[in-house]
Amino acid sequence: MKNKLSVVKIGGNVIEDEKALDVFLTAFSKLEGLKILVHGGGKLATQLATKLGIESKMIDGRRITDAETVDIITMVYGGLANKKIVAQLQAKNTNAIGLSGADGDSIQAHKRPVKEIDYGFVGDIDSVNSGLLTKLLSADLTPIFCALSHDGAGQLLNTNADTIASEIAIGMASSYETTLYYCFEKKGVLMDIADENSVVKHIDSDTYQELLSDGIIANGMLPKLHNCFHALNNSVSKVCLGDVTMLDKETELFTTIKL
Amino acid sequence: MKNKLSVVKIGGNVIEDEKALDVFLTAFSKLEGLKILVHGGGKLATQLATKLGIESKMIDGRRITDAETVDIITMVYGGLANKKIVAQLQAKNTNAIGLSGADGDSIQAHKRPVKEIDYGFVGDIDSVNSGLLTKLLSADLTPIFCALSHDGAGQLLNTNADTIASEIAIGMASSYETTLYYCFEKKGVLMDIADENSVVKHIDSDTYQELLSDGIIANGMLPKLHNCFHALNNSVSKVCLGDVTMLDKETELFTTIKL
Repeated sequence: MKNKLSVVKIGGNVIEDEKALDVFLTAFSKLEGLKILVHGGGKLATQLATKLGIESKMIDGRRITDAETVDIITMVYGGLANKKIVAQLQAKNTNAIGLSGADGDSIQAHKRPVKEIDYGFVGDIDSVNSGLLTKLLSADLTPIFCALSHDGAGQLLNTNADTIASEIAIGMASSYETTLYYCFEKKGVLMDIADENSVVKHIDSDTYQELLSDGIIANGMLPKLHNCFHALNNSVSKVCLGDVTMLDKETELFTTIKL
Repeated sequence: MKNKLSVVKIGGNVIEDEKALDVFLTAFSKLEGLKILVHGGGKLATQLATKLGIESKMIDGRRITDAETVDIITMVYGGLANKKIVAQLQAKNTNAIGLSGADGDSIQAHKRPVKEIDYGFVGDIDSVNSGLLTKLLSADLTPIFCALSHDGAGQLLNTNADTIASEIAIGMASSYETTLYYCFEKKGVLMDIADENSVVKHIDSDTYQELLSDGIIANGMLPKLHNCFHALNNSVSKVCLGDVTMLDKETELFTTIKL
């Protein structure tokens, strides 16, 4: 029987809020078994860029990562957010180790090819170094990933944290019974966007199609659910969607997705 | 017989200069055997602080690390400098992994007690987690340390990079035949400060006393040499002082210190 592994992704809104982050990290530190955390950096990078007078370039609502911006992201995600999370987890008796995709060659990627839009230093993931992660987990370490990959030629690349989480879960799924947790600002997939408690508790391939055709899953939830099913179709056992309370054993109100 | 280990410290002046950094990292990547790098961040932190309008507080020429400053240092040393070095070493076939003292609980410290001066969030090292470093080295990883330790209660602490290097070397000396390299802007200890080539090639306990009484070792060299002998008195085999070319096998002009 395979060992269990939890891959947890927290969004920028948690990172930005000191109290919410502390609540989350306490729950994460209590989560039993092997675990990996992936975090974004939220508005912190934009805030620092603004303070430094660096314009955030957006095309069609998507951020363009120029050389200055990748430096900002490296400082804020790879430095400030990552190291603070690691230090706080150490205080909660979790032996955390912070990683970018360059560290230990853990996430190899390539710069997104320029088609209609040049996204700049944005990485599309080629592979996850599951051998390294297995060694770290075996040494009782808990890897904490920021949203940076690298191209193997010396360049760090800004990479979507949701994608990093699903690719890590997929990469580990052959060795571990892997659950992927997407922790965000909602309690899960909602039947009624105006009702926080209208959580769809269970989704499978069939109900997914129904929710899609009924327009329940729309807008920002589309790529998130796409990531979930991509993971499930690549041997990840289960995906859970919910807010910071999801990791607490007592919490029942979140969405569980299985094939 | 013990395995050999090199602990190399590079100063801020190398970090700040892209070309010098590349030359150094090429030499470091070619250094045979097990190795650990420790880097400062030089003026990069002060530059960012200035851009953000944060005043650098100094008392008697020593930096005071308030909460804002430790955040800046975490961004610049722990984020930008550390991750860039790691990514560049990956491109040079060295499987680098970047660490602050919080990562893997690698360097435990306590906040310097307030006496006449309150240095703020500055750490004095209590212990180095040599067990973790041995595991990482055994996994063919090369640890890259920035100048941050932690107090185990969630606080990152600004810590002198020379001291981190000597304490790591001391911590590893019972398991490895350890050489400590201090790489700085001079070619070594100079007999005549005005003559770059007047390098004292070999120093031992006796010649150290002579150089001290003759005033050859003075000012900024005093704490550096103190660190060297502290390491040698605590089982480190050898300390080398020189510039970025020191790691090159062909270079003969640097200072070697043994008891």
